Amino acid sequence: MKHSFYPFIILAITCLHARAQQTIQEKLGYAKDAKLLILHADDLGSSHAEDSASIYLLEHGDVSSGSIQVPCPWFSEMAAYAVKHPGADLGIHLTLTSEWKYYKWSSVAGEDKTQSLLNANSFFYDDLDSLGKQANLKEIETELRAQIDKAINAGIHPTHLDAHMGCVFFTKDFLKIYLKLAHEYKLPCLLNVAAFKMVYGVDISDLITDKDAVTDNVFMAFPPASVESRAAYYTNIFNTIPQGLNCILLHAAYNDDEMKAIAVDHPDYGAAWRQADFDFFSSDACKKALAANNIHLITWKEIKDKLIQ
Amino acid sequence: MKHSFYPFIILAITCLHARAQQTIQEKLGYAKDAKLLILHADDLGSSHAEDSASIYLLEHGDVSSGSIQVPCPWFSEMAAYAVKHPGADLGIHLTLTSEWKYYKWSSVAGEDKTQSLLNANSFFYDDLDSLGKQANLKEIETELRAQIDKAINAGIHPTHLDAHMGCVFFTKDFLKIYLKLAHEYKLPCLLNVAAFKMVYGVDISDLITDKDAVTDNVFMAFPPASVESRAAYYTNIFNTIPQGLNCILLHAAYNDDEMKAIAVDHPDYGAAWRQADFDFFSSDACKKALAANNIHLITWKEIKDKLIQ
Repeated sequence: MKHSFYPFIILAITCLHARAQQTIQEKLGYAKDAKLLILHADDLGSSHAEDSASIYLLEHGDVSSGSIQVPCPWFSEMAAYAVKHPGADLGIHLTLTSEWKYYKWSSVAGEDKTQSLLNANSFFYDDLDSLGKQANLKEIETELRAQIDKAINAGIHPTHLDAHMGCVFFTKDFLKIYLKLAHEYKLPCLLNVAAFKMVYGVDISDLITDKDAVTDNVFMAFPPASVESRAAYYTNIFNTIPQGLNCILLHAAYNDDEMKAIAVDHPDYGAAWRQADFDFFSSDACKKALAANNIHLITWKEIKDKLIQ
Repeated sequence: MKHSFYPFIILAITCLHARAQQTIQEKLGYAKDAKLLILHADDLGSSHAEDSASIYLLEHGDVSSGSIQVPCPWFSEMAAYAVKHPGADLGIHLTLTSEWKYYKWSSVAGEDKTQSLLNANSFFYDDLDSLGKQANLKEIETELRAQIDKAINAGIHPTHLDAHMGCVFFTKDFLKIYLKLAHEYKLPCLLNVAAFKMVYGVDISDLITDKDAVTDNVFMAFPPASVESRAAYYTNIFNTIPQGLNCILLHAAYNDDEMKAIAVDHPDYGAAWRQADFDFFSSDACKKALAANNIHLITWKEIKDKLIQ
């Protein structure tokens, strides 16, 4: 998920959706006042720098979950990892944009079926505005379905759905397709009423049903969050995290030649920015702050098994 | 071009094709006994490690030419380079295989139009044998045409055609498509009668016409050529190079994390193997050996301008 927004904003927004009397913590088998957290690594499959850093975090228990971009060049690396590690909590990072300057990807369903989603060079658009202006809804559904099917065909058992750069949260019509697919494939999906309203201007409260597991709070460091203050940013979230189901979206990669080249002429979300996420979540300070605040790391698979299927 | 073959073989094969009395050197404006050489970097666009190493060689005059893989993740990096450097001698490295384990690519024309070229995961096959067994000729033509058109659409003015892993040299029917496209787009293409016969078992002598510029000799280091002996291998070629039109196919990349990850579990043509090509062709020893043997570096564009168009 990515979006230009206020500097260093903290998306700590209480969900407005009317919920059943039992809290989501209780439904999941935790105490009523538990502080649950999904530490979620985005953008898996997008590069080897991202994959190798994120796999390190998954294998060391530093993050609890991640999601994979099916149209991207390193998708097969993550698919092979998922097959070898069936316990890893991996979902589909639904993708309808290709934001880097020289490192591009295109649709899985094929150009003929997704022409409205592609630019003159047959790649996904760089940005959400272009997608919003051009996209045909039927083609979005075709493409997202193709991405989920390709992941399943490659041996991945996805635990959830979410979206790269929030592409499916961009309009209410996009969101309806996202929810339709989540219900059809019986997968939980990232949902937050207040955050979607604030960032995308979309009110999804009337779309939510009992089938959906809604995240109470979503947090993400947005550029120009400084690399130097990253640890303070996340530590502050841990120290003040509310009761309920929380999710932190992070983007871990190594600050190496590949990642630097990918992010060339792209001031936001670059190599050093991603290394800072890796550095914090792999640190002892992170583990200590989680423990000091009695935060329970959980997975999307728990939500899938207990609330969806 | 790539093919498992005899260790460290030297493809120094005199062309068997009957040629006009005037030598190709004379047709190109050189002395009858000139030793012409195209130093050609393969696999541009396949990775940033390959692009950055090859661009270094092109910019320092260490190689004279290269060719770009259109279906690959870093195609746009090379397309942008071509647009900014119209004098660079860049052709299309026609691609019908995706040989690495976790770093994959697929057709440009789209899955629906190229199903016979793709495996169960919708990527190109890993190897030529699978391609040869499954490929529909019409779909090969569709795909190769799509690759050339996409390159031109991106602003590249290709100077020539050749082929990744020699995919279009694999059968005579494939070669007919290659020649048909070269003639149609008025581009010279890599051709060598004896080499194709030896490596692929295909006799193309009856396919060659006056429209074609045939390379007298093609050289390439094949695995398991050792990294340590690479300089001696190329220096020996320079010291014994015949008169006529010669071409050395090389594969330069940096031995970095990206390239190592690309080549994982793939014993041949890996990161160190490609670094060895970079190290030799960027060396003073290479320049001295070329000069000592009075070898003229030429480009495919010279051939295109003087013999084809």
